[in-house]
Amino acid sequence: MLSKNKIKFINSLKKKKYRNESGLFLAEGAKLVDEILTSGFQVPLICATQEWMNSSRLKEQANIKELISITQRELNRISTQKNPNQVLAVVEQPVHKIAEDELTDNLSIILDSMSDPGNLGNIIRTGDWFGIYNLICSHSTVDVYNPKVIQSTMGSICRVKVHYRDLEEVLSEYHNVADFHIYGSFLRGNNIYQTELSDKGFIVMGNEAHGISKELIPYIDNRLYIPNYVGNAGYKPESLNVSVATGIICAEFRRRKGDMK
Amino acid sequence: MLSKNKIKFINSLKKKKYRNESGLFLAEGAKLVDEILTSGFQVPLICATQEWMNSSRLKEQANIKELISITQRELNRISTQKNPNQVLAVVEQPVHKIAEDELTDNLSIILDSMSDPGNLGNIIRTGDWFGIYNLICSHSTVDVYNPKVIQSTMGSICRVKVHYRDLEEVLSEYHNVADFHIYGSFLRGNNIYQTELSDKGFIVMGNEAHGISKELIPYIDNRLYIPNYVGNAGYKPESLNVSVATGIICAEFRRRKGDMK
Repeated sequence: MLSKNKIKFINSLKKKKYRNESGLFLAEGAKLVDEILTSGFQVPLICATQEWMNSSRLKEQANIKELISITQRELNRISTQKNPNQVLAVVEQPVHKIAEDELTDNLSIILDSMSDPGNLGNIIRTGDWFGIYNLICSHSTVDVYNPKVIQSTMGSICRVKVHYRDLEEVLSEYHNVADFHIYGSFLRGNNIYQTELSDKGFIVMGNEAHGISKELIPYIDNRLYIPNYVGNAGYKPESLNVSVATGIICAEFRRRKGDMK
Repeated sequence: MLSKNKIKFINSLKKKKYRNESGLFLAEGAKLVDEILTSGFQVPLICATQEWMNSSRLKEQANIKELISITQRELNRISTQKNPNQVLAVVEQPVHKIAEDELTDNLSIILDSMSDPGNLGNIIRTGDWFGIYNLICSHSTVDVYNPKVIQSTMGSICRVKVHYRDLEEVLSEYHNVADFHIYGSFLRGNNIYQTELSDKGFIVMGNEAHGISKELIPYIDNRLYIPNYVGNAGYKPESLNVSVATGIICAEFRRRKGDMK
């Protein structure tokens, strides 16, 4: 059974302040929690129904500090989900260092003030799909450990490393690296389909409403846009959702390499 | 000032049942409401702050039946948004007929049981961007007039027509039309980058968790997949978010035509 203190502790992790203080976050659902357990995350606490307890995956794992059997009703009470599914885990936030080589030799995504949790989750999933394993976010970007982000990554959070950094510092550091390119997504610029794309660089995506910050623009050496297609409609549509735009851009970078599977 | 009855009426439109019964929906924010007003929608009621009242756009419009000046506090009370912005409109749901020629001569998107409002909103925006103006949804798809969908379309709802139909009927009707293709998005199938793509056809996208329904599969004559790129990671990522996948697929159809602007 869950003590009042445990419930309070779990509820506190729904707030960014307490997640920051404790270095912990919540993850829910049999599939996601199983993936977290097999990915080497430290898991201080698992609250699970008997159904999950009976699953085989659990027994192989050693990194669970405390395991509490709860009823569905208790799970409903602590869950952040509409349809709570078997298990809620309290997980240690991983500490990712940025390996310079890893950045200079690969594509990474840079997010400037992304505010919507669903967008961040979608982009992490997109990174996973296209083998883009480093996501560098401004401090103003929504917290990756927000339960909405974690759940919408569908497990990709186990593979894509999300870093929070001062983006001006990061971009100025990489701006002059040889054979390294800083691309940004804009509503005007170079048609992505007519632009040479390298697989070593940053793809900078801006805030949902305001785009890329003024301070970062000088570091972007290639402004890309996704051409639209409006037939004879005689108007210009507003814009694409930023997670959709990120997907289209990443797909095009990978298509060029021609070695997608 | 807002009467209790008006507040009750507006609140009722936050529920699908009452939207269906009344044939109305809510739209909020100066930008979206202005776009709705200039798009010929019928607007039985507008509740707006003085700031919006003073805007010029209003005076040109004749299709507003009732206009109530409210305070920011009243707006906060009736709004569906975190940050209510100047105006809330009650709008008549447009009645869209499906023009057969329009479908057989163009691309359209078919959504099978899309459940997330944000995904539907993103896809409407994507349709607008790529000039795909008909979206045909299964009856099990989330209500397009859900405030979350309407707000996330960012005005694209004024241009993209959303129809609710029995998809098996629709697909069986178009299945044998000459020079018309029914594409579907799958995790396995033909690499979209190595497949001939026509600009006359349907692009069928499935439910977030379960993909395309069994009953619809026989009508799909080309299964497409978006290749991933996982380097040497030695695993296969789960999947892309469905609105991201729709964006990548639509972009590729349009890129092939080579006449994007």
